[in-house]
Amino acid sequence: MTESNPDIEISRRRLLGTVGAAGAAGLALGGASGALAHSALAGSGSGSATGAAGSLSSLGATQVAFHGDHQAGITTPLQAKGHVVAFDLAPGAGRTEAAALLRRWSDTARRLMAGETAPTADSGIALDAGPSSLTVTFGFGHSFFERTGLGARRPSALDPLPDFSSDRLDAQRSNGDLWVQIGANDGLVAFHALRALQKDAGDAARIRWQMNGFNRSPGATGTPMTARNLMGQVDGTGNPKPSEPDFDKRIFVPAAGPGPAEHAWMGGGSYAVVRRIRMLLDDWDKQSLAQQEQVIGRTKATGAPLTGGGETTEMELDKIGPDGKPVIPSNAHARISAPEQNGGAAMLRRPFSFHDGIGSDGAPDAGLLFICWQADPLRGFVPVQRKLDRGDALSAFIRHESSGLYAVPPGPRSGEYVGQRLLEG
Amino acid sequence: MTESNPDIEISRRRLLGTVGAAGAAGLALGGASGALAHSALAGSGSGSATGAAGSLSSLGATQVAFHGDHQAGITTPLQAKGHVVAFDLAPGAGRTEAAALLRRWSDTARRLMAGETAPTADSGIALDAGPSSLTVTFGFGHSFFERTGLGARRPSALDPLPDFSSDRLDAQRSNGDLWVQIGANDGLVAFHALRALQKDAGDAARIRWQMNGFNRSPGATGTPMTARNLMGQVDGTGNPKPSEPDFDKRIFVPAAGPGPAEHAWMGGGSYAVVRRIRMLLDDWDKQSLAQQEQVIGRTKATGAPLTGGGETTEMELDKIGPDGKPVIPSNAHARISAPEQNGGAAMLRRPFSFHDGIGSDGAPDAGLLFICWQADPLRGFVPVQRKLDRGDALSAFIRHESSGLYAVPPGPRSGEYVGQRLLEG
Repeated sequence: MTESNPDIEISRRRLLGTVGAAGAAGLALGGASGALAHSALAGSGSGSATGAAGSLSSLGATQVAFHGDHQAGITTPLQAKGHVVAFDLAPGAGRTEAAALLRRWSDTARRLMAGETAPTADSGIALDAGPSSLTVTFGFGHSFFERTGLGARRPSALDPLPDFSSDRLDAQRSNGDLWVQIGANDGLVAFHALRALQKDAGDAARIRWQMNGFNRSPGATGTPMTARNLMGQVDGTGNPKPSEPDFDKRIFVPAAGPGPAEHAWMGGGSYAVVRRIRMLLDDWDKQSLAQQEQVIGRTKATGAPLTGGGETTEMELDKIGPDGKPVIPSNAHARISAPEQNGGAAMLRRPFSFHDGIGSDGAPDAGLLFICWQADPLRGFVPVQRKLDRGDALSAFIRHESSGLYAVPPGPRSGEYVGQRLLEG
Repeated sequence: MTESNPDIEISRRRLLGTVGAAGAAGLALGGASGALAHSALAGSGSGSATGAAGSLSSLGATQVAFHGDHQAGITTPLQAKGHVVAFDLAPGAGRTEAAALLRRWSDTARRLMAGETAPTADSGIALDAGPSSLTVTFGFGHSFFERTGLGARRPSALDPLPDFSSDRLDAQRSNGDLWVQIGANDGLVAFHALRALQKDAGDAARIRWQMNGFNRSPGATGTPMTARNLMGQVDGTGNPKPSEPDFDKRIFVPAAGPGPAEHAWMGGGSYAVVRRIRMLLDDWDKQSLAQQEQVIGRTKATGAPLTGGGETTEMELDKIGPDGKPVIPSNAHARISAPEQNGGAAMLRRPFSFHDGIGSDGAPDAGLLFICWQADPLRGFVPVQRKLDRGDALSAFIRHESSGLYAVPPGPRSGEYVGQRLLEG
């Protein structure tokens, strides 16, 4: 791609007026974003800014910190729009080109997350908009390490996931050298970031696959926001909470270093498992409500266990109904995936829904862009999925179509780029 | 599709608490929505509601009226998410089945737009959410009239659009007997409506094509919200305003009747032209900012004409630059499409952007779901597109891939269903 693009030197903050120091909603991510330059409006042939000062809502004004112990987009509240995209390094590109790319990407991500324009050739798509909780998260796939000569620094946690009997994976939409997750509460802000990062890739990397997702818009539901998936189920009930004492231990690689010195670059990082899980919605919708709730083990309306209570009430897994059978069936999804049934395995599920119109089979090509985070996939996703693979009642209604596992390095310190401790360490 | 689905008799308003009588944002649509039943929570196996009372933002709480002189979704402010879908009547289905379908669809649309559940077998996807400015808009394609034996009542305004030399239309994604437009400020509310309407179709109609779109989220930008497309251009600047005296005449068929008595059913209706316009974004992004602005005739940052001023300043089409050429080039998109260059032709452009990942050519499969509204396509879309087809500088960067023209009947009166005046008149 040529770099003759227009170079709009407009501070979006200038166009917007002063946005105010809205922090990341809900969760402090650590670190602080740098001071925001209010660059002059120039080069557009127009001397006037639109000046919609002060009228952004919190949806537009909320800014998530780029720097910190962990990358943004892991504990950040779910955003309304998301893109996930995998890149492969171009033939001939190695460690040097990868380091330069991560430096460019980090610079772009830092600026866009602050509501500024891209460093060069901004497309203008996000002009007028605030940061809108934009996050950009970068990860490395298994193949990245061979291609960059960094095989010795590849953690064993990145070993390929085992095969699951119910998988129907499309290799073209799986894996990849580099993975980027983009989230924002505005669709144009998210698309703008995707295009800017794609442009940054230049000749160093090319897109392997790319998927789009969505979640509820902030304010569409009451507080706290209940996540629902496209089957209508409350989603994410069992997620570990950042307030729990062992949250960091479960989700993030220890900052002190994860073992051998050559893996120390992952201290503070996390592992993401990414799966496109198509939902067979026409089949699902033919089930009665009672049947659906037996499959899940929870009520649809509130997410409460079939043994009673509310969404966060613990399941009574031993409770027997009048028919002599467990109230929560032995193959219910909620039972099988419960941490207490999996040696305390825990992962932070942070998915997007996807909907790509009608599939070639005439049914909706829709489902869940499943993204989960953990310090070690072998103690998070893998044992749970092994068990689901054997006996989950839900598996008749879903299909895992793609899979990726990525090492997501820690958040960058000020002046650092994401992955620098790997690429220059 | 069987109708054995669960029948969740939950009022979403009950779950949400009282939402308050938030009217349609921005534009009064006429008419009033009916009283809202607060049906009892039953049949879900749970006796408790989540009760997130009072915490919806205006994004979630805003409700658009189903009844009125005109259907919703025409002058309603742009929503963040959209679906457009065309159905063909099933073999053997005729006027009777079509009338029953429109009755089912209208009942569902009325209820969902009020934040209630679907009449039967609600999927639960929108539980917890407010109406979120949901609109559902129904139209009839040219082929609908033959299939229902209503050929004599088909207005000539529905005659097929002329061929345009730059068109690259895919017949499979064009036209259709019935057309439905769904918009909402929450992605799950929109998807919920799409699924409910698809289910209503039952054996009477099947999906011909279906597309997804998006716009800015409310609050992401300052007020007034500036629409931008995926090329980064301000979009919709030249739109007629509802406050203008001839707005109704240009956009809606006269309520008194559009001519012959057999077309009186369209009084108060409008005609929608729907085109999937792919943007060749990789090519576009290789142009300099100056080149892009010459193609459009407006500045990118503010949408102001190249002859100066702000977004709403009139273009000085006769102004000559120091190089002896018109400041707004003779083939600039804004010049060619200007109403004053087209005998006052006016249409209300109300598009969504689309982004369906990466196309088979490796470039973004993204662009504009162009939707425009007018009382008569021969005095709206057709003359403008004829002119653009001949000499628009923008045409090198876009590709019209699908096309549809639909007669969108007036809004229903209380107790009436959409299209009743055609189907039972």
